[in-house]
Amino acid sequence: MDTIKKLFTVTCSLYNKQQSHYASCNELVQACHRKLFAETKYAYFGDYKGSPILPYHVFGLTIKNLTVYSRPVRPDIFIADIDELVRSQNAFTSLLEKHPASWEAAEIELSNKVVYTSVMSISCAYDLWQRGSRKTPGTFFEVLMAGILKKMLPDAIFSKSIPLANLLHDEELNEANSDSGQDIQNEDDATGLSTDLVIALPDLPGGVVIPLKITTRERIVQPFAHQRILNSAFPDGRFQSVLVCISETQLDEKNKAVKQVTVPGTVQLFQKYLAKLNGIYYCDIPQRYAADSMQKIVPVKSVGQLFADLAKILLTHSTRK
Amino acid sequence: MDTIKKLFTVTCSLYNKQQSHYASCNELVQACHRKLFAETKYAYFGDYKGSPILPYHVFGLTIKNLTVYSRPVRPDIFIADIDELVRSQNAFTSLLEKHPASWEAAEIELSNKVVYTSVMSISCAYDLWQRGSRKTPGTFFEVLMAGILKKMLPDAIFSKSIPLANLLHDEELNEANSDSGQDIQNEDDATGLSTDLVIALPDLPGGVVIPLKITTRERIVQPFAHQRILNSAFPDGRFQSVLVCISETQLDEKNKAVKQVTVPGTVQLFQKYLAKLNGIYYCDIPQRYAADSMQKIVPVKSVGQLFADLAKILLTHSTRK
Repeated sequence: MDTIKKLFTVTCSLYNKQQSHYASCNELVQACHRKLFAETKYAYFGDYKGSPILPYHVFGLTIKNLTVYSRPVRPDIFIADIDELVRSQNAFTSLLEKHPASWEAAEIELSNKVVYTSVMSISCAYDLWQRGSRKTPGTFFEVLMAGILKKMLPDAIFSKSIPLANLLHDEELNEANSDSGQDIQNEDDATGLSTDLVIALPDLPGGVVIPLKITTRERIVQPFAHQRILNSAFPDGRFQSVLVCISETQLDEKNKAVKQVTVPGTVQLFQKYLAKLNGIYYCDIPQRYAADSMQKIVPVKSVGQLFADLAKILLTHSTRK
Repeated sequence: MDTIKKLFTVTCSLYNKQQSHYASCNELVQACHRKLFAETKYAYFGDYKGSPILPYHVFGLTIKNLTVYSRPVRPDIFIADIDELVRSQNAFTSLLEKHPASWEAAEIELSNKVVYTSVMSISCAYDLWQRGSRKTPGTFFEVLMAGILKKMLPDAIFSKSIPLANLLHDEELNEANSDSGQDIQNEDDATGLSTDLVIALPDLPGGVVIPLKITTRERIVQPFAHQRILNSAFPDGRFQSVLVCISETQLDEKNKAVKQVTVPGTVQLFQKYLAKLNGIYYCDIPQRYAADSMQKIVPVKSVGQLFADLAKILLTHSTRK
C-alpha cells in the first residue's frame, strides 16, 4: 500500500496546488486495480434482490483462513481487465476534449464505467488494506471529478465553497466577529457555504454546485439544504445543484446478498419542500431511484450522462450573460 | 458496567412500551454517578480560554500508569455530591408538577443542573467503560427528556415523527409504493419526518418539534432543514422547532485545554436563509452563542429555561385552538 498511499498524497498535493492532477489520478487507479487483481479474488458474492435481480461481485482477501471482503462491485460496469481499463481511460480522456453535449449512448456508457471503475478500485483497495482511512475514497472521488471536469471545461472556474460572507455583512455579524476577539480561536467557517465543487463560468454570476458523495446515507439532506439557502440568498436562480454519487449498496454478509439503501420518500419530500436539485447522478443507479415515479420528481441518471448535462446547464447559463 | 447496562435496557424498554420510565432514568443516573466517584478521579483538567476563562473538570481512570479521560465537565453546573444530586432530582421532580411558566431563576438553574448532571454522568461512564457504545449517551438524552416532559405535560401527546405521508399522497408516491413491491425490502421511512421528540396538545394541529443532540457538529443543519419542510408543508406555522443540546466542548489533551466548537456564522445563515428555530438551548451554553450579536438572530438559552419556554409556546399554541 505504500506506493498507493504515496501516489494518493502526490495527487492531492497537485490538486491543492491547482496543478494538473488528472494523469496522476489515472495512475493511482491503475496501481490499485493491479494490486487488487494480483492479491485478492474477484468473484460473485450475492444478488440485490430487486427487479431485475442484480448480481454483485466483491474482492476477497484471505489471510489464515479468514476472508475479508471489499464493498460490493457491479461487474457489468466495473472494468476488470487492466488493459481494457487503460484503453478506456485514454478513450475517455480524448472524449473530454470533444464537447460532451454531443456525446452519444456509447460515449456516456464508457464515461460511466471509467468513473465507476476508478472510484471502486481505490475504495476496494482501502477497504482491504487501509480500513482506518475511511475518508480517503470520498476525497479521491472529489479529486478525480475535479480533474475530469477541469479537463472537460478548461475555461471554467473551480472552487470549493460559495462566498456568502457578504450576505451576512450586516451589523450583527461584524459585531459577532469583533466579539470573538483575538484570544478565541476562530473555528467557524462563516465566510462561505462549504461544498465539494462549484463550477462557474468567467464573467457570469453563480454556477453549478456539485456535492460529491460515494453514498449519501443520512447526509442526503445537505445538498437540498444548501440549495435552499442559495435560492433564498440569490432568488434569481444563479446557482443550481446536482448531486453526484457512486452507489447506495451495502454488503449483507449474513445473507450473502447486497442491499440498496434508499429513501425515495425522503428525497421526494426534500425535492418538494426544501429545494429542487437539477438532478441526481449515480454510477450504479439504485433501482428504486430509477423508478418512473421518482423520475417525475427529480431526474436520476448515470454519471456518464452528467458530463453531457453539465455541458448543457453551463451553456444555458452562459446565454444568461 | 453490567448493572448500568441492564438499567439502561430496562429504561429504554419502559420508554418504548410507553410506560413511565422517569424514575428508572434517575436510578440509572445515580448508578453511573456512584461508579464514577468510586472508581475514577474527578479533577480540574484545563480551561476554555474564552472571556471569561472557564475551568473544566474530567473523570480520569488510571489503569497501569495510563490515564483515560472522560469528556470535559463544567464543575459549576455538575452536581458532584451524590446526596445533593438525589435531593436535586427530587426537588426537580416536584417542580415539574408546578407550572414551569411560573418558575423563577433558582428553579431554572436547578433544572439545568439536574439535566446536565444526569446526561454527563451517563456520558462520562460510557466514555470510560463502554467506548464502543457511542450512541448510548444520545439515546439516554432523548429518553430522559421525554420522561421529564411527560411528567411536566401530562396531557400532551408525544411522538417521534411527523406524519407527512399525506403531503405526498399524490399519484406519484402511490405509484412509487406499488413499484417497490413485496419483494423489495422497505428500508425507507417515507411516511414521516423522523426527529427526536414531537409534542402536541390534544385537539390541536401541529406542535413543537424538539431535536435533541448532545453536541451538534455537522448535524446542525438537520433541525433547520426539517423546520423549513414543515414551513413549506404547513404555511400556517403550526409546527415550531427548538434545538436542545448539552454542550459543544472538546477535550484538547495536547494543550491540556478545552475547546468550544461553534459555528455562529453558519447558524446565522441557516436561521436567516433556511428556516427559523424558536430557540436553541444548551446546559453549557457556548460563549460565542451567548453573544448579543447571536441572540439578536436566534435566542440561545439554558435548558433550564427551556421548560418555562415550552410551557409558554404550548400555551400560545393552545389559544389558537
